[in-house]
Amino acid sequence: MTDLLSPDQLEDALRTIGVERYHNLHPFHKMLHGGQCNKGQVQAWALNRYYYQCGIPRKDCALMANMEQKEMRLEWRQRYFDHDGLGEDEGGIERWLKLTDALGLDRDYVMSTEGILPATRHAVEAYIHFVRDKPLLDGIASSLTELFAPAIHKERISGMLVNYDFVDDSMLGYFRERLNQAPRDVEFALSYVRRHAVTVPQQRAVLNALYFKTDVLWAQLDALYLAYVEPDMIPPGAYIPAG
Amino acid sequence: MTDLLSPDQLEDALRTIGVERYHNLHPFHKMLHGGQCNKGQVQAWALNRYYYQCGIPRKDCALMANMEQKEMRLEWRQRYFDHDGLGEDEGGIERWLKLTDALGLDRDYVMSTEGILPATRHAVEAYIHFVRDKPLLDGIASSLTELFAPAIHKERISGMLVNYDFVDDSMLGYFRERLNQAPRDVEFALSYVRRHAVTVPQQRAVLNALYFKTDVLWAQLDALYLAYVEPDMIPPGAYIPAG
Repeated sequence: MTDLLSPDQLEDALRTIGVERYHNLHPFHKMLHGGQCNKGQVQAWALNRYYYQCGIPRKDCALMANMEQKEMRLEWRQRYFDHDGLGEDEGGIERWLKLTDALGLDRDYVMSTEGILPATRHAVEAYIHFVRDKPLLDGIASSLTELFAPAIHKERISGMLVNYDFVDDSMLGYFRERLNQAPRDVEFALSYVRRHAVTVPQQRAVLNALYFKTDVLWAQLDALYLAYVEPDMIPPGAYIPAG
Repeated sequence: MTDLLSPDQLEDALRTIGVERYHNLHPFHKMLHGGQCNKGQVQAWALNRYYYQCGIPRKDCALMANMEQKEMRLEWRQRYFDHDGLGEDEGGIERWLKLTDALGLDRDYVMSTEGILPATRHAVEAYIHFVRDKPLLDGIASSLTELFAPAIHKERISGMLVNYDFVDDSMLGYFRERLNQAPRDVEFALSYVRRHAVTVPQQRAVLNALYFKTDVLWAQLDALYLAYVEPDMIPPGAYIPAG
């Protein structure tokens, strides 16, 4: 981009990134919700994604550390609570562990994260470092994959329930919660980006932040595909499904 | 230090740093609680320290971003809540603004932080960067000035009430709260440091972290002294007390 966009044009450009690059387009996602994964592949996905779930509250804390205004931190911290929990809410990490439990993965093994793929670790760490080190605007913009998340969560819930006899409704609490949380979260972030990306370099940075984030998500599914679909090259130390 | 210390010896060494270098030893602190400050000097202190208060929750978020274990974040976040507030608790930043209000400082001016001394800004930013960039152990150890804080808060409350007719009890809520919060906080941090600083380099890092933090506090009072006591060299742009 070389010309300054209006806020609506910027939002359109951001939404286009989702249409073109969000990980719902990835072959592994299509297999997962379409019922073409075997149980070991679903386990590998849940095990690896646990590390992503653990990284999100750290990422949100890193972002809050960059917020000089208390009001912004108070706005943003609900995301942190969504994952680590607060009061009655056990939080998303705990809900994710209910899924890995129900898939038959040992909880200590999951929490140790020792069986995850190296590329999962790198992608999640890259996300935390991006948010920590870049300007606040870029960090906030990188959260905007939430624009595209509700559709994928719905797809996961219905697809996984219909297609896998080892998945039942009680395992999918995480996704159901996210259906409510993501739209609420994205409202603040989108409005912030629309108001604060007012120069060409800022708009470019905002678009790049969302490209970066779609890459973070995509790379995790790429790694799963290579290791557990084809050519089935599981790296040393990574989880080996039973059978 | 060259020999490995026992946990008790390490704690003694940490406490010695407080005895030798905590900012209760600084001439400005002695003036402040001893009643030798004029109102402008008390205002300048409260104005500058507001920026430190604002930095603390950012520092705690930066530290939490470095905590891979949810349980540690849940333990640490009470410190964050102490400053930004949660539910009924308005938080320490708001309590500090009650003090600056009562001292006759304009709240918008205080919150803009535009009148603070450059050295205040540098010290606070240095603290946030230290915690963000150093190992978690160093970041936790840097909080251990809380070992020495209750004594100074008590001194401030009694000294300021006795010595200044422009200070009353309602202005000192921040310090009264800290009397309860600091001992609770320090227990976790001290126990963590005792358990995790188990090599000579780690113990050296922990001691250096506390030296660093005492310097962060000392430098802020040095800057106040130079600008507002003697030689009364207020830097360009910094707050100029009335009269």
